Amino acid sequence: MQRAAALVRRGCGPRTPSSWGRSQSSAAAEASAVLKVRPERSRRERILTLESMNPQVKAVEYAVRGPIVLKAGEIELELQRGIKKPFTEVIRANIGDAQAMGQQPITFLRQVMALCTYPNLLDSPSFPEDAKKRARRILQACGGNSLGSYSASQGVNCIREDVAAYITRRDGGVPADPDNIYLTTGASDGISVRTILKILVSGGGKSRTGVMIPIPQYPLYSAVISELDAIQVNYYLDEENCWALNVNELRRAVQEAKDHCDPKVLCIINPGNPTGQVQSRKCIEDVIHFAWEEKLFLLADEVYQDNVYSPDCRFHSFKKVLYEMGPEYSSNVELASFHSTSKGYMGECGYRGGYMEVINLHPEIKGQLVKLLSVRLCPPVSGQAAMDIVVNPPVAGEESFEQFSREKESVLGNLAKKAKLTEDLFNQVPGIHCNPLQGAMYAFPRIFIPAKAVEAAQAHQMAPDMFYCMKLLEETGICVVPGSGFGQREGTYHFRMTILPPVEKLKTVLQKVKDFHINFLEKYA
Amino acid sequence: MQRAAALVRRGCGPRTPSSWGRSQSSAAAEASAVLKVRPERSRRERILTLESMNPQVKAVEYAVRGPIVLKAGEIELELQRGIKKPFTEVIRANIGDAQAMGQQPITFLRQVMALCTYPNLLDSPSFPEDAKKRARRILQACGGNSLGSYSASQGVNCIREDVAAYITRRDGGVPADPDNIYLTTGASDGISVRTILKILVSGGGKSRTGVMIPIPQYPLYSAVISELDAIQVNYYLDEENCWALNVNELRRAVQEAKDHCDPKVLCIINPGNPTGQVQSRKCIEDVIHFAWEEKLFLLADEVYQDNVYSPDCRFHSFKKVLYEMGPEYSSNVELASFHSTSKGYMGECGYRGGYMEVINLHPEIKGQLVKLLSVRLCPPVSGQAAMDIVVNPPVAGEESFEQFSREKESVLGNLAKKAKLTEDLFNQVPGIHCNPLQGAMYAFPRIFIPAKAVEAAQAHQMAPDMFYCMKLLEETGICVVPGSGFGQREGTYHFRMTILPPVEKLKTVLQKVKDFHINFLEKYA
Repeated sequence: MQRAAALVRRGCGPRTPSSWGRSQSSAAAEASAVLKVRPERSRRERILTLESMNPQVKAVEYAVRGPIVLKAGEIELELQRGIKKPFTEVIRANIGDAQAMGQQPITFLRQVMALCTYPNLLDSPSFPEDAKKRARRILQACGGNSLGSYSASQGVNCIREDVAAYITRRDGGVPADPDNIYLTTGASDGISVRTILKILVSGGGKSRTGVMIPIPQYPLYSAVISELDAIQVNYYLDEENCWALNVNELRRAVQEAKDHCDPKVLCIINPGNPTGQVQSRKCIEDVIHFAWEEKLFLLADEVYQDNVYSPDCRFHSFKKVLYEMGPEYSSNVELASFHSTSKGYMGECGYRGGYMEVINLHPEIKGQLVKLLSVRLCPPVSGQAAMDIVVNPPVAGEESFEQFSREKESVLGNLAKKAKLTEDLFNQVPGIHCNPLQGAMYAFPRIFIPAKAVEAAQAHQMAPDMFYCMKLLEETGICVVPGSGFGQREGTYHFRMTILPPVEKLKTVLQKVKDFHINFLEKYA
Repeated sequence: MQRAAALVRRGCGPRTPSSWGRSQSSAAAEASAVLKVRPERSRRERILTLESMNPQVKAVEYAVRGPIVLKAGEIELELQRGIKKPFTEVIRANIGDAQAMGQQPITFLRQVMALCTYPNLLDSPSFPEDAKKRARRILQACGGNSLGSYSASQGVNCIREDVAAYITRRDGGVPADPDNIYLTTGASDGISVRTILKILVSGGGKSRTGVMIPIPQYPLYSAVISELDAIQVNYYLDEENCWALNVNELRRAVQEAKDHCDPKVLCIINPGNPTGQVQSRKCIEDVIHFAWEEKLFLLADEVYQDNVYSPDCRFHSFKKVLYEMGPEYSSNVELASFHSTSKGYMGECGYRGGYMEVINLHPEIKGQLVKLLSVRLCPPVSGQAAMDIVVNPPVAGEESFEQFSREKESVLGNLAKKAKLTEDLFNQVPGIHCNPLQGAMYAFPRIFIPAKAVEAAQAHQMAPDMFYCMKLLEETGICVVPGSGFGQREGTYHFRMTILPPVEKLKTVLQKVKDFHINFLEKYA
């Protein structure tokens, strides 16, 4: 029993010492030497302190922008100030931020966005007709024909219709209902994972809602679970089997969890983040059957649906498989699936666009959802417009089709090349093992950390892989995220690195990691 | 004791019957006759139901987009289907959505946004140089020089610098530190009121955090308090005195609240929403002194800072007054202030841009705040860019200055005219009393509802003012929000109406309300 509880609560590896005590930009502020007016005399005890604050918020951890990223920012400022380092720039391979790594925006998407932003351009001959057509359609659906008006809380109607049509095409004709589509502020913000989990969480003590998440996971999940004071229930992906999801492991996890919580939600990330596996159709069927059997609400994070690289893998949506399994499943299993403008081939992270599709949600709960969303008024309308272009791109015969297709294929082709390159190069390094990057945008190699390095890390009160990643950052300028931020089996160590840098730069990065690793092994041998 | 508890918990008037059971767009979906594939046989009990859901979420109410707005949507669809009504269009005077009411975007703002969106336009001779200069500055501060990259969680550095410079100018030289600025997704979304309250709320039973809010209030506050399971502590604005805030009433409220919670936060809305009052400098001083004395964290909602119409009123920021009161206050009182791109003269609601400035926040709490924000990655970068242009508009001597000033003054001048017009016309109607609209964008007139109408409302299980507003909507097509959604003294009734329709339309609206009201009084005499 105690073991089960520990398993359920653990999940994210040892806690790392927190540098959160200073804000992300405090170094920047110091650098710019801004005048501070805070007489330190007569300072009273503050109202809001670490002791008095909300303990659930204090418990939140989020590695992707954690201490290592703060450190990276500090190093960048030191470089700017001319301080000598063994490198000339920080390479931020910690976050899936394609355009920050030099990926160019898809021209058609930005053309439509510019037309929507400044409709005077609709008269300009330098914009193609198909872009103008889409911009007019979006604007006509906006209050006052302007992106500057609030939309309905659920999102602009015609964009939800376009999303539904896209899903129907994607899923080979399985129908989608615009009424089940909710436009969001990306997949990480208020209107999506967080909101649906917020509605789902209830109960106290042993009946508190349990939320099953993969380990390794994308730490949005553990952070939201922590914020909501829900119970995190870990199921482990099978590293020896290309990070596959094994239903027997789901069964183990749910059985053990039932001793101390009410497991009610099962989160799946497919393609996997940080692990890059693409689930087989059979595996998805098994998961759906399991969810049906155990009465679990399914959350399918499918933001990497366009990012599949292995020739023997294909993306299958949970929605499609659910419908193909017949009415016992398709009319019973409750599912929410997420997509986003931030990933795929467009990489439009900054616009914060996305959608959620819900299946079998109780009509009363839909009402509750809209109510909750309405307090936030609406997702950014510019992000909604970006989502529209992603689901409604130029088609054969349209003026922009050729350029659009060329740009899209170039991005995805490059990512596929870089996925293979990364896997191959990592696997040439002694003490690094990397599963195939079947999809998504990350490598999550397993790294061997010698016992002496583990001791050194402990002396610094750091998780061993945090220690490793900090050293990597300090010696090479490469910023990656320690596996402990995503969760990993005890005694194993990993890091997550994006494959977004341009090919030549990525080769340099991989070579530097290799040299660093070999040197690290020698140093702590 | 019991009375005090009732006072603290009440606040929002009688509960109204909920139409939340259907989602906002279900009528639209039916109208478009989308194929539904839900075999009703073999339906099991759902996992997520009104009974099983999070009770805090169920308790949330949000009137501005509540049942009356759903009804308005249904009526619009009926009109589209050709169903005859005594009017030809629904006028949505329920929400401060300027551009939906025909207000044109500020040209300069949209030019800079278009340039940032599609940088090819930087070569176009049809855009002014000052717009290009700003666009280049914003893009240079973005990862990969693109709005499509994530920004720092706290927001783009140079935009935070521009916000700080704006505040310093606004406050006559009181310095602002970019490190204290957090860019947000409008003032209603995750990164602002909700986040700061979320960090503040703690304790159980009698030590649960109490949050003081004005009554009438903007229902974002009651909704977030409900979501966070905090204790709502009401203080009443003085309707007989132009909705002024009286510190004696604050004192009464905090004393009574101390019996059953730990009052820790004081929310102020200035200029007032829905009440439109503008606080005097003296009153702000009194409030700050009170917060200092009672050790309350101040939340100042100042999103209407540009919307002041009465010639004898001026906007004073809490920050400025705090600094002018001397170091005992300026180095101790903890304050967060909010601004937004959605109001003012720009009315860019759809971009979801805004900022929060914090004063005297403990450095460790700043770290916690950045951590929490980082889970959401970043506010929409397009909204951040919009905020930049609001705080960094063209100045005298720049190419766009004249047009910008003309557009700005036209919007604000019109709003001032409409504020006066609305006050004057309402006060000519027997049974309606309307305080001066000193600022913001709303009238909140008090309406007399005859006893027979109150009975009729009760028979429909509606609050009397909801009944009134539903009738108004059904008979005239005018959509306003009942006072019970904002809170009001027991036995008094109000509604909130925006003054955003163009002057001629507004005159028609006011005439229709007048006719309706007289007719209503006769009918229920």
